[in-house]
Amino acid sequence: MSPGEDRPAALVQGILEGDVRSAARLMRAIDDHDPGAREALKQIYPHTGRAHVVGITGPPGVGKSTLTDRLVERYRSDGQTVGVVAVDPTSPFTGGAILGDRIRMQRHATDPGVFIRSLATRGQFGGLTPSTRAVIDVLDAMGKAVIIVETVGVGQDEVDVVAAAHTTLIVTVPGLGDDVQAIKAGLYEIGDLFVVNKCAREGAAKTVSELRALIELNRRPREEADPEAWVPAVYGTEALAGEGVAELAAAIDQHRAWLLADDGRRLAAWRRRQLRQGLLDMVREELWRVARTRLSDEGIEAGVDRIAAGRDDPYSAAEKLRDTILGRGDG
Amino acid sequence: MSPGEDRPAALVQGILEGDVRSAARLMRAIDDHDPGAREALKQIYPHTGRAHVVGITGPPGVGKSTLTDRLVERYRSDGQTVGVVAVDPTSPFTGGAILGDRIRMQRHATDPGVFIRSLATRGQFGGLTPSTRAVIDVLDAMGKAVIIVETVGVGQDEVDVVAAAHTTLIVTVPGLGDDVQAIKAGLYEIGDLFVVNKCAREGAAKTVSELRALIELNRRPREEADPEAWVPAVYGTEALAGEGVAELAAAIDQHRAWLLADDGRRLAAWRRRQLRQGLLDMVREELWRVARTRLSDEGIEAGVDRIAAGRDDPYSAAEKLRDTILGRGDG
Repeated sequence: MSPGEDRPAALVQGILEGDVRSAARLMRAIDDHDPGAREALKQIYPHTGRAHVVGITGPPGVGKSTLTDRLVERYRSDGQTVGVVAVDPTSPFTGGAILGDRIRMQRHATDPGVFIRSLATRGQFGGLTPSTRAVIDVLDAMGKAVIIVETVGVGQDEVDVVAAAHTTLIVTVPGLGDDVQAIKAGLYEIGDLFVVNKCAREGAAKTVSELRALIELNRRPREEADPEAWVPAVYGTEALAGEGVAELAAAIDQHRAWLLADDGRRLAAWRRRQLRQGLLDMVREELWRVARTRLSDEGIEAGVDRIAAGRDDPYSAAEKLRDTILGRGDG
Repeated sequence: MSPGEDRPAALVQGILEGDVRSAARLMRAIDDHDPGAREALKQIYPHTGRAHVVGITGPPGVGKSTLTDRLVERYRSDGQTVGVVAVDPTSPFTGGAILGDRIRMQRHATDPGVFIRSLATRGQFGGLTPSTRAVIDVLDAMGKAVIIVETVGVGQDEVDVVAAAHTTLIVTVPGLGDDVQAIKAGLYEIGDLFVVNKCAREGAAKTVSELRALIELNRRPREEADPEAWVPAVYGTEALAGEGVAELAAAIDQHRAWLLADDGRRLAAWRRRQLRQGLLDMVREELWRVARTRLSDEGIEAGVDRIAAGRDDPYSAAEKLRDTILGRGDG
């Protein structure tokens, strides 16, 4: 935080009391890589771990935002508070988030029980997954009961983001063409629930039965590992009309109950896997952050010069810079 | 390469002579993170830089593979050799590439003038962009005149991959729904040519005119930076029937000529940007590779234990591990 702004302690206090402006301020600080953000995140961390995180993903145009909107409506009518993290594909140059049809969500914008945050998938070194985890922690510490992470896209970064949710929904629509096979297969293993949206469309029955066949195919190995393994089911929705959303919300609750059953054994195992992955991601980001301070622009340009002049190859040039960072070189 | 296999020198010689089996062997070694692969890549590097790299991207289901197939056919009928790198979304668990409709490409598989390679977007620490660059270098050193990099997906990794092409094609189809706006905007800045495939479909004229409006909007800032800036155009194709493909191939040639004009000034600038980005990516990967050897499983588990027990937060635990790697801690 810049001088004159609230100290982390006051900001943290505000977030723990559910204050929207404090939360928004910390999220901006995270975006700006403000060193103060780190301190605040450390302080709120002990107050996280209560929210249920729902990941929603699938190819573009299947209605993920509309489905998110309907689920928010549902949770609100049950009196639960909700946080939404919308991870947007973005320009590699401008770094700006695109609002797109999130506009539709704005009817929840005046509801103090809902907090919506867009995250850009900016810059290669931004670290999408750590940033998303940080935003989820803020929403969790604010006391949101349910946090929905919605991401457009089928890229690895986006898969990693939704794989970090307690309950992951894979959304598709009938008649998307051949590529959908690849997406279904690629995302299959992280899906806890499958949704065929726009299910009144032609071909819906075929899409549902294809998904069911995929689930059946993978059922045995899952059940061998855990006799009470979760078996994903397929749900049909017409999100625009709100149809099938109540059943979907009930299925999310069932999956949550499954995670919590048995004295929370599964939840504990899930949490350990997440902590391990989150820790490694963060070490990697931290390492690069420190590394960049040890690399001078002149050093990088000299490396590029050598490669451009044919006096070095990129592999050898990278090794020299790596040794400079690790203090093994002459740099 | 494992003992008993060819030494890098023989492998490199084979690749420079265009030998398919040598190239396939090196690509497998790259996949396996074989240390010998690195040595071979260093040796082939001086022989790269001749191929024209064409990137093809866009949302799933728009017919990118079919378009790639048609472009390959076109280049082959002109007597040019072609390499294809298909970057597939994949499971974060199995790491396996999905063939999907690449099967369709198999008619080129028996043509010695075409080399097709699928790359999985595996594991978070795999480094998709460096792996793709390495495969492009192998195809380039083999003497392929044109290399097509095709990627499903709209994720940041995939954007980075196609942004590294000389000529980048953004493919869409009419009537994909609201999300397409986001994709178009997000990908707009890296697109040299825009393709509306399945252009006989309803709504094609609307999609074309929307894309043209986007181009027009961004024309002035481009032309202010360079009065002879490339202005992207929109092409309609029916890839399945081969319609519009000749015009598209001609446009790719025009873009190439534009890059080469003016004594190659633009190409040189492009190459410097690519080298710089490639070098930084490689330093980052190299650094993490060395870092992992300095991190013990016990050290990581101890960090997870501390967080799980509430005795540490992930940020502080990551800082401790980072210091261990950098030799600043007690680890």
